[in-house]
Amino acid sequence: MATVGFIGLGNMGGPMAANLAKAGHQVKAFDLSEQALAAVTEAGASAMSTARSAVEGVDFVVTMLPADHHVKNLYLGSDGLIGLLSDKQLVIDCSTISSEAAVEVGTELENAGIGFIDAPVSGGVGGAKAGTLTFICGGNEENVDRARAVLNDMGKNVFRAGDIGAGQIAKICNNMLLSVLMVGTSEALQLGKANGLDPQVLSEIMLQSSGRNWTLEVYNPCPGVMDGVPSSNDYQGGFMVDLMAKDLGLAQQNALKAGATTPMGSLTRNLYHSWAQQGHGRQDFSSIFNYLQPVTNK
Amino acid sequence: MATVGFIGLGNMGGPMAANLAKAGHQVKAFDLSEQALAAVTEAGASAMSTARSAVEGVDFVVTMLPADHHVKNLYLGSDGLIGLLSDKQLVIDCSTISSEAAVEVGTELENAGIGFIDAPVSGGVGGAKAGTLTFICGGNEENVDRARAVLNDMGKNVFRAGDIGAGQIAKICNNMLLSVLMVGTSEALQLGKANGLDPQVLSEIMLQSSGRNWTLEVYNPCPGVMDGVPSSNDYQGGFMVDLMAKDLGLAQQNALKAGATTPMGSLTRNLYHSWAQQGHGRQDFSSIFNYLQPVTNK
Amino acid sequence: MATVGFIGLGNMGGPMAANLAKAGHQVKAFDLSEQALAAVTEAGASAMSTARSAVEGVDFVVTMLPADHHVKNLYLGSDGLIGLLSDKQLVIDCSTISSEAAVEVGTELENAGIGFIDAPVSGGVGGAKAGTLTFICGGNEENVDRARAVLNDMGKNVFRAGDIGAGQIAKICNNMLLSVLMVGTSEALQLGKANGLDPQVLSEIMLQSSGRNWTLEVYNPCPGVMDGVPSSNDYQGGFMVDLMAKDLGLAQQNALKAGATTPMGSLTRNLYHSWAQQGHGRQDFSSIFNYLQPVTNK
Amino acid sequence: MATVGFIGLGNMGGPMAANLAKAGHQVKAFDLSEQALAAVTEAGASAMSTARSAVEGVDFVVTMLPADHHVKNLYLGSDGLIGLLSDKQLVIDCSTISSEAAVEVGTELENAGIGFIDAPVSGGVGGAKAGTLTFICGGNEENVDRARAVLNDMGKNVFRAGDIGAGQIAKICNNMLLSVLMVGTSEALQLGKANGLDPQVLSEIMLQSSGRNWTLEVYNPCPGVMDGVPSSNDYQGGFMVDLMAKDLGLAQQNALKAGATTPMGSLTRNLYHSWAQQGHGRQDFSSIFNYLQPVTNK
Repeated sequence: MATVGFIGLGNMGGPMAANLAKAGHQVKAFDLSEQALAAVTEAGASAMSTARSAVEGVDFVVTMLPADHHVKNLYLGSDGLIGLLSDKQLVIDCSTISSEAAVEVGTELENAGIGFIDAPVSGGVGGAKAGTLTFICGGNEENVDRARAVLNDMGKNVFRAGDIGAGQIAKICNNMLLSVLMVGTSEALQLGKANGLDPQVLSEIMLQSSGRNWTLEVYNPCPGVMDGVPSSNDYQGGFMVDLMAKDLGLAQQNALKAGATTPMGSLTRNLYHSWAQQGHGRQDFSSIFNYLQPVTNK
Repeated sequence: MATVGFIGLGNMGGPMAANLAKAGHQVKAFDLSEQALAAVTEAGASAMSTARSAVEGVDFVVTMLPADHHVKNLYLGSDGLIGLLSDKQLVIDCSTISSEAAVEVGTELENAGIGFIDAPVSGGVGGAKAGTLTFICGGNEENVDRARAVLNDMGKNVFRAGDIGAGQIAKICNNMLLSVLMVGTSEALQLGKANGLDPQVLSEIMLQSSGRNWTLEVYNPCPGVMDGVPSSNDYQGGFMVDLMAKDLGLAQQNALKAGATTPMGSLTRNLYHSWAQQGHGRQDFSSIFNYLQPVTNK
Repeated sequence: MATVGFIGLGNMGGPMAANLAKAGHQVKAFDLSEQALAAVTEAGASAMSTARSAVEGVDFVVTMLPADHHVKNLYLGSDGLIGLLSDKQLVIDCSTISSEAAVEVGTELENAGIGFIDAPVSGGVGGAKAGTLTFICGGNEENVDRARAVLNDMGKNVFRAGDIGAGQIAKICNNMLLSVLMVGTSEALQLGKANGLDPQVLSEIMLQSSGRNWTLEVYNPCPGVMDGVPSSNDYQGGFMVDLMAKDLGLAQQNALKAGATTPMGSLTRNLYHSWAQQGHGRQDFSSIFNYLQPVTNK
Repeated sequence: MATVGFIGLGNMGGPMAANLAKAGHQVKAFDLSEQALAAVTEAGASAMSTARSAVEGVDFVVTMLPADHHVKNLYLGSDGLIGLLSDKQLVIDCSTISSEAAVEVGTELENAGIGFIDAPVSGGVGGAKAGTLTFICGGNEENVDRARAVLNDMGKNVFRAGDIGAGQIAKICNNMLLSVLMVGTSEALQLGKANGLDPQVLSEIMLQSSGRNWTLEVYNPCPGVMDGVPSSNDYQGGFMVDLMAKDLGLAQQNALKAGATTPMGSLTRNLYHSWAQQGHGRQDFSSIFNYLQPVTNK
């Protein structure tokens, strides 16, 4: 078992840290929210009063933060952790941020002798709670292997996509594709419904045909087709529209920089963006199903 | 074993009729192409000189034709089969046509006492040859069950989507979704490649994450990632761009009639349409991967 | 001055009939709504109790109806006007319907010796009231010229696009383009606003640059930039989202039939469709400006 | 008349500098290309051997460069012009670059006491040669007014969009809109053509209806409709696809940063990007008309 400094205890980070503590690791946790801190101490973590005290002397530093500037600030800002960490420690940043920011932070840490991998996750709040997340890592092989000691207690899959930053790239590629699967599946189910087909029957058919995809398998967007998913719970819980919109923005930023052509990913970014703007930002991202309802009241 | 009149022996119909003959059914086959006829006789079918002679006295009539007017003409045209068939025979139309045409033909046949189901297929030429097609049927339960006696020897799945015409609806919903999966997966792989990721590694990661879908499982569009698929064979074989464009046109016609909103399905219809127009109509539909190449020569 | 039978006195037809009456024509008007009938009698038209009585013996029959089936029914249905009209009369159908329906009705009338032109309009309710409509006509040159005797008193431009049905084609081409102008202009103004630019200044600049278009000239979608337009009146009045969605559906039906590639027109059809579905169907079509608001509340 | 240091003599900058010289200004020109330098000396400018010698002591410095890093480097790089210029000189950057870069360069120059405006242009190579460009300026009112002394001799319109950087914002808003006008107009003309309409007649009709826009007025994309435009010259000359793709990339970068929703602008960026990738990058941007041809060979 290892000692872990865990910073960022939100909807994702909280249950991840709790799972580490339950697995027997010694977790020193920090978050600005007292409530978030209290929740992880119940699972056996120690609440620390500063980020610096949380990382002092630990084997692994795990961070789960909202955006580029939080990560850059924490590690590289004035009084940043870079001045405190040593070459015995490994930094695992699980935040979903731009690959540029990951490369910038990772490179500076490694130049200072501190190991770094970017390890954004797939699987949502449900996966975080169940400990079934997928980690998509960027970094050298040795560091990714070393990280498994803690990643395996928070998830069931650990992939290495390439060098530092590659985890972020693979993550946004996956999430861009996920958005396309979700909107496409919603369109197909709505088109069937508009023609009188039973969405459950149609889902079953497409699931066993060439339309098969992750959303039909475990995350059907049509209310009533599947138990225990957000669509059957008024689109509460799950992966928020706001967060999907953020990831799609990262994907587009990257596509522009790379000169990539992504007509579908551009379209889903716009659809999720305006779905958020119309007040659905805190619903699960499968709520886009409702955006695609046929016009019936004419 | 049954007697089957089989009309339409193209890329799909040919291997389907051959599989029926190999399974021991007595197949009376007809097609305007002598070459196509010759091919199925090798598998044990009898070549007939007219459509009428092919269907006389058989238990099942199976048709696999290109478009609405071929099917309408064959069954309802002057000298159409409707005047020849009896209430002991079951018509199984495997063509992919509009649901309106299926409903029109099916209703007229049933009004004349002749059983009818629409049973379009999923699985492509590969599935037709391997006998692993999926049949998506519309018609009453009794007729769909009756049809299994022959469908099971051409495929591995038989679904009933609803009443007459529902097979066509479910088929275009599935294929519209398939086009979205294909373009979305191609975009994600190209975006990863443009950032230096190995498409094989990225495919593996997305396959085990929320980006998982049929194309990543069995039909990867990136050359070299998967053996035995069109992308690794210069996009030859498989499911032609022209045919996908046709199916997407049917889906959009239906969406317009039903008042459905399908931004992604509209976009893929346009992308495949102009990909066909630029000379790629006879390539496999996974060739859209090439349409999405990043600009590199600047 | 001529005698005119005018059928269909809605938001458009009402003021058009009134302008004819004011110009001195003898107008025999019919509509199922008593209220609509009352309004045009104030302008000098005679209210008739049936469509048949309205067209008896007149020089011109003008119709302004909502959809294909209304027009087909009126002229070709059981008890249709085709049985009543003579070769001395000219039918001018100003409805926006599919070109197929226009060709069907027009051809049958002409086969019966009755002159026909399709003459859909551009210019909206404002243009109908002000008598400044544009008529986009399909039919032979003689009939289009003959029609000017009445069209000139309802509008300021009369174009001949080609033979019967061509008016409808040109109309949907124009309206598809108009939808693109409106959404594109709204995006550009919102993007400028999100960057702190004054939409009035930006409108002025684009109006005198290569972004110039009809919406910037006379129909600015941003509230407060222009007086007397729907955007400055809470998007009331003008050309309803529902009607734009209908026209865009006609354009897409035609595009599918013609094998045309229209990525932008497909997208605007979907955007207007879902904007209608979300409850904005009776607002002016420039309200799409609001759909494109940046996300600000995050 | 003023003294002007002009740096960047490409397709746009060359004729702009020539027009200044012809108008009587004393122009000291610099470019890395000897050929470009030779061309402007014929118009009366003096060829200088370095950028530094070109700007020494002049009243105005005008730059027309390809991208962010060229502009940043020239002014702020090691040995940058910022160390050479004085508070008596005004810098007018006519390059189309990101507003961030314009703000960065402009702010540093102004902090050093040197006046700056960004003044990107609209009107293309034709406008540059004819001296009919539109300048869209960002900067304080005094500096924009001061700049008119030279801008008026290269163009016919000078607009002030707002403070430093606002010129670039307004320019990309305009060009994003222009791309939408061009693609939308091309779709409408192709749809009409596919239905047998004469593109000249349809253009005339839409020009006088609500489809009116700059491309129909002066830049019709359909070959043969209009004389003296790129479409009637095999899409040679004019505004290259590569450049439009670049501007649309800038627009999307800005939209992502601003949280703006631009479904049409995203789509045109992808269309122009893949049109470039397919080998049309050096054609005029109206060549997108060919991308939208209906499928005819089936």
